[in-house]
Amino acid sequence: MLEPSLDLYGATFDAVDGILHELLAKSRARYALIIDRKGFVLMHARAMWAPKPPSLDSFATLVASNYAANRAIANLFGEEGFKETVQQGSEVGTYLEELGTEALLVTVFDSGAQLGRVKLATKHAADAIRVALEATPEEAPVIEFNQDWSSSTAALLDGLFGTRKP
Amino acid sequence: MLEPSLDLYGATFDAVDGILHELLAKSRARYALIIDRKGFVLMHARAMWAPKPPSLDSFATLVASNYAANRAIANLFGEEGFKETVQQGSEVGTYLEELGTEALLVTVFDSGAQLGRVKLATKHAADAIRVALEATPEEAPVIEFNQDWSSSTAALLDGLFGTRKP
Repeated sequence: MLEPSLDLYGATFDAVDGILHELLAKSRARYALIIDRKGFVLMHARAMWAPKPPSLDSFATLVASNYAANRAIANLFGEEGFKETVQQGSEVGTYLEELGTEALLVTVFDSGAQLGRVKLATKHAADAIRVALEATPEEAPVIEFNQDWSSSTAALLDGLFGTRKP
Repeated sequence: MLEPSLDLYGATFDAVDGILHELLAKSRARYALIIDRKGFVLMHARAMWAPKPPSLDSFATLVASNYAANRAIANLFGEEGFKETVQQGSEVGTYLEELGTEALLVTVFDSGAQLGRVKLATKHAADAIRVALEATPEEAPVIEFNQDWSSSTAALLDGLFGTRKP
């Protein structure tokens, strides 16, 4: 099964979430996303004032596949990949930076935002996220299927399909 | 048949060729290319000091297909496309700007080049090229197959396959 290549939870999740919101505040960008190279959205943050974003899953898939295609161009010049990519439209722009070998940090900004500020804030955030990810990872939380879970699920199924005959 | 969407010849060709070389001199970029959105290389220029470029046809095809994929991302945000795209690697970078609805201007620069200078020079070149393309186009040159062409081709074929028996 295709699964995200990175899981974020616990203290690491909170730390990275804080970094993304700080990035938005500093750069006045609309959205900040961490996506993995397979196209999964790992985390995302949205500025309070920003309009409702389009489907972030579609966005992440397009960005990830585009990133792979860009590597083909970089390979032509004997490079492994492009470290940063800026795209500027008349309304919005995107800035993309690598986060190690697994993930990408994408900032979506208004064309009114200062590109220099967006780049600087995104670079700082990327550094901070790399540090957070490299910190000793805590154990992944174990999901326990206990008596509570079992009985509530049974009740839910009974509600859907009718009570089981004993 | 898939054909380039734009033909350049005569005085227009010379004018645009001059603009591309001026762009290289001003921005200290390695290569400057005009490609159409189908992936054909329409014109290219290379700085004297630049290393031998990789296959420009492959490069143009990748850039054009990538450009199309980027439009899908722009569409998500209700935009028609991104007007400019910068990609920065550790050794080289590319800067791409639209030239009307048919073509793209791509500058490939060393990472040592100043991005601001590359952007400015490319923007100026794009404006100048748009003006050159919009100037009243001269008639396309007509290829004449005259007696000379006919006899030299006959001689060439005879050389390949042996003299025709009369």
